[in-house]
Amino acid sequence: MRIVRFRYLGRRRYGLLDSEGVRPLSTSPFRVFQQGRDLADCVEDGVVFGRDEVVLLPPCAPGKYVGIGINYRATAEALGMAVSEEPVVYVRPPNCIIGDGDRIELPVDGEVVCEGELAAVIGRRGRDIAEGDVAAHVIGYTLTNDLMDVAQFHRDKGNPSLAKGRDGFAPLGPCIATGLDLATAELATFVNGTRVQAGFARDMLFGVERCVSHVSRFMTLEPGDVVALGCPPTPARIAPGDRIEIGCAPIGTLANEVAGAPRT
Amino acid sequence: MRIVRFRYLGRRRYGLLDSEGVRPLSTSPFRVFQQGRDLADCVEDGVVFGRDEVVLLPPCAPGKYVGIGINYRATAEALGMAVSEEPVVYVRPPNCIIGDGDRIELPVDGEVVCEGELAAVIGRRGRDIAEGDVAAHVIGYTLTNDLMDVAQFHRDKGNPSLAKGRDGFAPLGPCIATGLDLATAELATFVNGTRVQAGFARDMLFGVERCVSHVSRFMTLEPGDVVALGCPPTPARIAPGDRIEIGCAPIGTLANEVAGAPRT
Repeated sequence: MRIVRFRYLGRRRYGLLDSEGVRPLSTSPFRVFQQGRDLADCVEDGVVFGRDEVVLLPPCAPGKYVGIGINYRATAEALGMAVSEEPVVYVRPPNCIIGDGDRIELPVDGEVVCEGELAAVIGRRGRDIAEGDVAAHVIGYTLTNDLMDVAQFHRDKGNPSLAKGRDGFAPLGPCIATGLDLATAELATFVNGTRVQAGFARDMLFGVERCVSHVSRFMTLEPGDVVALGCPPTPARIAPGDRIEIGCAPIGTLANEVAGAPRT
Repeated sequence: MRIVRFRYLGRRRYGLLDSEGVRPLSTSPFRVFQQGRDLADCVEDGVVFGRDEVVLLPPCAPGKYVGIGINYRATAEALGMAVSEEPVVYVRPPNCIIGDGDRIELPVDGEVVCEGELAAVIGRRGRDIAEGDVAAHVIGYTLTNDLMDVAQFHRDKGNPSLAKGRDGFAPLGPCIATGLDLATAELATFVNGTRVQAGFARDMLFGVERCVSHVSRFMTLEPGDVVALGCPPTPARIAPGDRIEIGCAPIGTLANEVAGAPRT
């Protein structure tokens, strides 16, 4: 199933997306997940909004967005970086989050790369989550564009707070897919139609169980928080006017344009 | 005036603290600030809760906590660090926030230092705020203990996400004081009654106008967000069983104990 968050007549709600449109949920999908109920049993009877009738929002509103750096061997090799013994973790503030179709604004003096990634969405509160219990805390997966200003990152000597923390630097969406099989999930990122990144989730250095468990040793994870799982090779430089599309079959496509006219 | 957030009969509210107790506000203090009204005009007529009747909470619930590193020359010198040409910025997620009187939990393998700091509390949304407009965005000041696991910081090569991002690593409180004069404000931190840090806000390398303006070039600041303004010399190592008190006359004292029995 594909969970979306949307605005209809000024009200923000959750719903399920299917070929006919958006079916509003009568309650929070996180509550449904925590209660072990079936999302399909929680749609409002007979109500379907057309895709054009609603505004799709980021599929959740994370209090924190936690990212895992350098989580594919090939990405580490391409960047000439060492593979870490533990997941490399960074945090982003909520101002980074924008949705599918929203515009990315680049800093004038920046050197920004895009990174298409899968992100686990937390459905149940947890701290010190054992690897074997992670599945009971993850409601599903969405896509994210883990943008970073590499010039700022170097100026800040490896502190990612400003390099990753800018407004709109973490597009998220278009939906949260439940039941995604990470053993087969394939991810690809296109800039202006050219494929710049691709890989399989099964090639992650640290799987979702390890990543979520590791983060939860430091931070209580809350419903709606996301853990971005790292990008397959290789981060690609972007410029004003670019259109970035990140796709993974069951989730769909997260597409964002970069503000401004193309540089000549 | 001193703004507090408190729980009474299970409900979270804002109020004003005075010698008689807590006077509940009829609306959000941020709305009052944005409307340019006087907080004293917004208390509920005749209602005063005794200090023992309510549970004081962190005085705001920041969506983001932004900190400024190395903001006193003497701190930089004591740590052997260079003074930066621009404010050094890091972000913390909301799980860091605890209130006055809450317990700090240390990691077993950590090397944690405390840093008593003033923090500006944002009252009005803003992006690209000019230095001259900062006063119109800051509702007041609170105190914070900017805890950091130095061992984790070195393991993570200068990435503060885990070193500063742990649950409870940013105590905040006890209130938001309005009308604080930064030209005279003096700050002191005590561990088990011994003064370990002290300084004047006027000795900050980057004043509040510069810090808030700089952060807002990257991130939209929202009501309730905090910008922690750096610690006077010198960060002090803490251990289980310690009691940490951070004081600044008009705000009061932020006191937290470290969980666990004292090491022998």
